[in-house]
Amino acid sequence: MKFLGKVTVTLKRGVFDPQGVTIKNALHNLSFREAEEVRTGKYFEVVIEAANSTEAEKKLSEMCDLLLVNPVIERHGCHVEPIEEMESAT
Amino acid sequence: MKFLGKVTVTLKRGVFDPQGVTIKNALHNLSFREAEEVRTGKYFEVVIEAANSTEAEKKLSEMCDLLLVNPVIERHGCHVEPIEEMESAT
Repeated sequence: MKFLGKVTVTLKRGVFDPQGVTIKNALHNLSFREAEEVRTGKYFEVVIEAANSTEAEKKLSEMCDLLLVNPVIERHGCHVEPIEEMESAT
Repeated sequence: MKFLGKVTVTLKRGVFDPQGVTIKNALHNLSFREAEEVRTGKYFEVVIEAANSTEAEKKLSEMCDLLLVNPVIERHGCHVEPIEEMESAT
């Protein structure tokens, strides 16, 4: 069974994010004064072949730890959903 | 009231994603044969000052259309949540 793993990676709170500051300034220049802070990050979608969602989540978590995320400066969130659900939603 | 807007941006289906292919190959080299496809993208967190979540969502959608997303080659998803909820969750 196929699952779609979604991973969001952002810099930890204390790590300076110059790209985010630049985007915030650009938003202000476009009159979006409501934007008080912008943090940028990375996003990954991984199609995983697994027997069930628990196994897919476990594999995705291992992938994050080994390759996708640098735990020194980054934090991440991930979740897994069956592919069928994803396709009907888009 | 403050809201946290979360935006995920990925390349559209037909657009070649060489970074995703490279990551997939790296995962295979790390014995993650379950990873069948990897798509990469961007992730933004925007702190928005707004009267209610409907207004915050509207503003975030405008920010996506004007600056954060290139609709020619990218698709995006966004949602908004109150900041309090986010802080208690982390």
